Amino acid sequence: MAGVLDGLRVVDFSRVFAGPAATQVLGDLGAEVIKIEEPGRGDEARGFGANAETLARFGASPSFLALNRNKRSIALDLKSPAGLAMARRLALSADVLVHNFRPGTMEKWGLGWEDLRAQNPRLIHCGFSAYGETGPMRDFGANDVALQAHSGLMELTGEPDRPPVRVGTAGIDLHGSLGMVCAILAALLHRAQSGEGQKVTSSLLQSSAHLMSYFYTDWWLAGTRHQRMGTANHLSVPNQVFPAADGDVVIIAPSDDMWRRLAQALDPARLDLPEFAGALDRRIHRGKLVAVLSEVTRGLAAEEIVRRLGAARVNVAKVNSVAEAADHPQLEAIGGVLEFERQGATMRSVAPPFTLTATPASVRRRPPEVGEHGEEILHELGLSEAEIFAARQAGAFGPAAIRSLCQPAG
Amino acid sequence: MAGVLDGLRVVDFSRVFAGPAATQVLGDLGAEVIKIEEPGRGDEARGFGANAETLARFGASPSFLALNRNKRSIALDLKSPAGLAMARRLALSADVLVHNFRPGTMEKWGLGWEDLRAQNPRLIHCGFSAYGETGPMRDFGANDVALQAHSGLMELTGEPDRPPVRVGTAGIDLHGSLGMVCAILAALLHRAQSGEGQKVTSSLLQSSAHLMSYFYTDWWLAGTRHQRMGTANHLSVPNQVFPAADGDVVIIAPSDDMWRRLAQALDPARLDLPEFAGALDRRIHRGKLVAVLSEVTRGLAAEEIVRRLGAARVNVAKVNSVAEAADHPQLEAIGGVLEFERQGATMRSVAPPFTLTATPASVRRRPPEVGEHGEEILHELGLSEAEIFAARQAGAFGPAAIRSLCQPAG
Repeated sequence: MAGVLDGLRVVDFSRVFAGPAATQVLGDLGAEVIKIEEPGRGDEARGFGANAETLARFGASPSFLALNRNKRSIALDLKSPAGLAMARRLALSADVLVHNFRPGTMEKWGLGWEDLRAQNPRLIHCGFSAYGETGPMRDFGANDVALQAHSGLMELTGEPDRPPVRVGTAGIDLHGSLGMVCAILAALLHRAQSGEGQKVTSSLLQSSAHLMSYFYTDWWLAGTRHQRMGTANHLSVPNQVFPAADGDVVIIAPSDDMWRRLAQALDPARLDLPEFAGALDRRIHRGKLVAVLSEVTRGLAAEEIVRRLGAARVNVAKVNSVAEAADHPQLEAIGGVLEFERQGATMRSVAPPFTLTATPASVRRRPPEVGEHGEEILHELGLSEAEIFAARQAGAFGPAAIRSLCQPAG
Repeated sequence: MAGVLDGLRVVDFSRVFAGPAATQVLGDLGAEVIKIEEPGRGDEARGFGANAETLARFGASPSFLALNRNKRSIALDLKSPAGLAMARRLALSADVLVHNFRPGTMEKWGLGWEDLRAQNPRLIHCGFSAYGETGPMRDFGANDVALQAHSGLMELTGEPDRPPVRVGTAGIDLHGSLGMVCAILAALLHRAQSGEGQKVTSSLLQSSAHLMSYFYTDWWLAGTRHQRMGTANHLSVPNQVFPAADGDVVIIAPSDDMWRRLAQALDPARLDLPEFAGALDRRIHRGKLVAVLSEVTRGLAAEEIVRRLGAARVNVAKVNSVAEAADHPQLEAIGGVLEFERQGATMRSVAPPFTLTATPASVRRRPPEVGEHGEEILHELGLSEAEIFAARQAGAFGPAAIRSLCQPAG
């Protein structure tokens, strides 16, 4: 089946997580994504968190391989005028341009929206920055954990009476990636109606604020200061982790009906008591309830608790390891895993976080090597062999490309 | 300026966080959003985490007010045939339908995609579920924290040698909300080309897997099992919280250049040493580096560290409280705060996590009261007074509406 974005060209200057995750979703939807990389090392994420053995076996880090399917790569040295000229030709051929350079960098290179719109008025120009393109902090650099700290998310994550901790994944980057996809798709809808492109932006700051939005409103309206609560929650009781005989489970029963079903399903004699009957009762007797329910759950296997409470329509889940979660058959059953061949092996990555039943996501390309598709991309742009040769001599593809030109390999 | 989704009608059956957050973004982009609520209490989120004083002052919980601007509300009793008939008329008038009932519920009510497509083939039908609509866990209920547990995110969040903790915000819900927006916008693009609507879905499971995607790939490819590391990270050193004289800061310097600039900016004599010069050196000497750098930072105010390292282009951020983050001038400077009038007061909420410069988000309506716009919505659908009267008598708007019909107020 055809993808929604078939025939659309995305030129992607972004690196590391948020931008590449966004353009991967666009690629999954059918767009042609051209990844512009620094000659040599390429996207820094290619080496992130990988040891030498992993790099040798897979050719790139797992985090790079997780976020760069459905892309081709061209290596361009943006510090050289010849490399910039090639980048500009690509930008003028694009429907969508994505970058995450600091505010002002693309303009310095003549690749800002205002620089390109006269010649490419249908372009969607998407920039992702740390704190946005205006305001007192516009020139600050940051990354995911910096915004976990800045946004107050870190302050709310951790145990009471212990220091704050980071969220275990780069959630602000990945949430920001979907913010970019939303902005780009909305701008494409506007273009379909008006014929006009536009500049769209997102940032780690906007992503983090959206994730924190109901806490900010609570502060603005009511002056509420929430505390770290481990796995518990201020909203209701029980709403946290409980120990099973062979692991841990989270149990959440905010309504009185659900609590009653929980009590009946696990141990009515010890749980279905008047002092726990109402939501306020359960918050007042939080300590006692957690202690009694823990005694009950400790006597049962995790799977048994999940089975009984699931059947009673009580929210429950096992606390899985990453390995258990990744390999759980449910994820594959809903089409949540995509596969591709690379380095002679079948590799698995996570599908986009939604399903279009009539126009499903597809994998058409494995993650590329640095600069793997440079020649074919330049030919498609209409460059002649002589022009490509001249650009190479001028350093467009980096010093190594010049060397390889002058000194045949070997 | 006109919004991208001007003239588009969204009929929203969803409750609590993910669905309402998604339809709020659609409303911000210009769509008309009609929120269908249970007569009486309405969306359960109206009471979430709010005490009696907050409810009296603001009429709804801060978490409801954070996620329901740009919507009108109609109260319909979906347990009554007359209420379902009204819901069906609304669904047939919609461009987009959103719900988060359990798989099978909308179909039972005759409101599934297959039930509606014959009469409304342009409809985008968006369902958000816990674990998806197929597979062995399709009938399990869940919420944000259940998927934090199921996905492995909880296992990675917390201190080493301490139990896992939850992420301090409902990140899987809110990430899922953007997954829905992406799916709906992509389906609208497809409809603009083909004239055809389609069914789209997302789920807490897909949202959580996307947030965990690079950990899953690391497990699938290399068998890597990551550990909880407090605020630190396996990728590089330093990359964690350090104590300032008057608070905490996160400092991240993954590259050797950035580390050198950090050392020069803070205390070259104690930091710019050969044993810390290379990335691998810093990982090998992690304990010593963290101890020495902590001694240095403890002697400086947080703002001073941020100023010096920011100027040296080292990633740094203060660990803010929620209050500091919400009130930080940078968020307002980039248009990250939207205001509306409600209960005679100006209320603030967080903007969508992206900016469309030519077609910006707008606030046209404050969050509604339960059923506030029922009459006008029904009149717009073309119902006569007699039809509305008959529907009310038949229980379409709940038992209270019948009572108020029979017994004039007072």
